[in-house]
Parts: sequence; structure tokens; C-alpha cells
Amino acid sequence: MAAKIETSRILKEPKSLREVLLDKGLAGLGDMYVNFVYSLALSRKFERPIGAKVNNRILAEAVKRSGLRKMLPRRIDRHAQGDAAEALIVFAWLQEAMSFEDCLKVIGEGDDPTDAFTELLREIGKRLGATYE
Amino acid sequence: MAAKIETSRILKEPKSLREVLLDKGLAGLGDMYVNFVYSLALSRKFERPIGAKVNNRILAEAVKRSGLRKMLPRRIDRHAQGDAAEALIVFAWLQEAMSFEDCLKVIGEGDDPTDAFTELLREIGKRLGATYE
Repeated sequence: MAAKIETSRILKEPKSLREVLLDKGLAGLGDMYVNFVYSLALSRKFERPIGAKVNNRILAEAVKRSGLRKMLPRRIDRHAQGDAAEALIVFAWLQEAMSFEDCLKVIGEGDDPTDAFTELLREIGKRLGATYE
Repeated sequence: MAAKIETSRILKEPKSLREVLLDKGLAGLGDMYVNFVYSLALSRKFERPIGAKVNNRILAEAVKRSGLRKMLPRRIDRHAQGDAAEALIVFAWLQEAMSFEDCLKVIGEGDDPTDAFTELLREIGKRLGATYE
């Protein structure tokens, strides 16, 4: 999907992982991306259309459990931790490291969204060749 | 994209256009869909990641200009008009009447989002074989 819809111009220069995590523009686009994928995953699971926003607490906990927290400045609140997760998830999509379909699949697995987002952040880290530890 | 990610189970029964427009579940999922497509259209236009929500005033005006307003109950506020637009837009995607890519293209055209959403609603009406008048 990313190639077909020409997202390549959106990211003009290579960014370090840390820059990605703190990029407010990526966090903004990522917010919309993550909420849509999450809503679609729930809609498929419950077989009816559902709109839902991912709670920041879930994203912050996933950031912690996945090890990504260590990449972030010490003094960073829950909101900024959620932003970092959203930035990374949409960055992985724009870079074609994780397709929309793969993202949807991981988010839709299991019954605990915190587990699912933890797994998603770990998988993205692997695919980007990053170690969070 | 719709076929690949198996959205067919989300809509289990055929709905009349009027039912679609007043469906709160579709409006919820549609809200997430529309905001993501709109953010991606802006990101492509300005060549940097942007997260933005579509203003209800824009959607309500597009509902009016496209003729869709006539399909809705008389006593319906701006918020519900926006919901109707979002429900219809994501319904068209789930039904594979309008692909994500086509939707993105129409929304990204021109400089006036109201014009773009008006055109989108008209085009969806045509593709669904509906006349709003």
C-alpha cells in the first residue's frame, strides 16, 4: 500500500531512531494511523464497525515492556511516550518495514491490547534492525 | 486493500443508504478512516508528516453541497451530518466501491477541503448507484 500511494516524499531525510521517536509531525500522523488500524482490528474481531482510540496508558506500558523506553529521555511523560510509539509505528509503515496488513494482524491478536502493542513495537524494532536495550 | 485485509465480515447485512448514514458504528470507524486519509493527503501535499482532524463544519457543508443532506432527517445537527459523511465514506471503502487510494486522491485534490469532500461524496454516490436528489 505504501508504495502505491507514494508516501516516499513524506520522509525526506534519514532520521535516527531517537529523532523518529521525538518527531511531533510523525506522532500526529501516527495518532491517526494507529487509531484507524486499532478500530479496524476491533471491527474485524467483533464483526461490526467500531471506532476506538488507543489509550495513552496502553501505549506507554507497551513502550516500557518492549524496552523502547530506554531510548527516550528520562523526563518524559506518558503522553510523550504514547507519541513516541505512534511516531515509530507510522514511521515503520512509511519506510515499508511493516505493512498496514501486518500491523493490523499483530494488533488484532489476542485479547490484551497492551500485549499486542508490545509485540508490535518489538517486531518493528527487529525489522528496523534496532535494539532498544 | 479491502479484499486483502478481509473487511467483508464487518458488514454482515445489506443496508439501505439511509441506514448507512445514520449508523453510529460506521460513523465511529469512519471518523478514524477519514482523519487518517485526510492526514495522509496533507502529509503528501506538504511533504512532511501531519496529523489533522477534519472539521465537522467542512463535512456538514460537503453534505449540503453534494445533495446528500436531502437523504437525512430534517432535524439533524452539524455533528450528525458529519457522522453521516464519515459513515458513508468508510462504507464505500468496506464495500470496495471506493478504494483507499482513490479516496486519498480525491481528498488531496485542490486547495479547498470542502470542495474535495463534496466531490468525494458525489463520486461515492455515483459509484453506489445512488442519487441524493
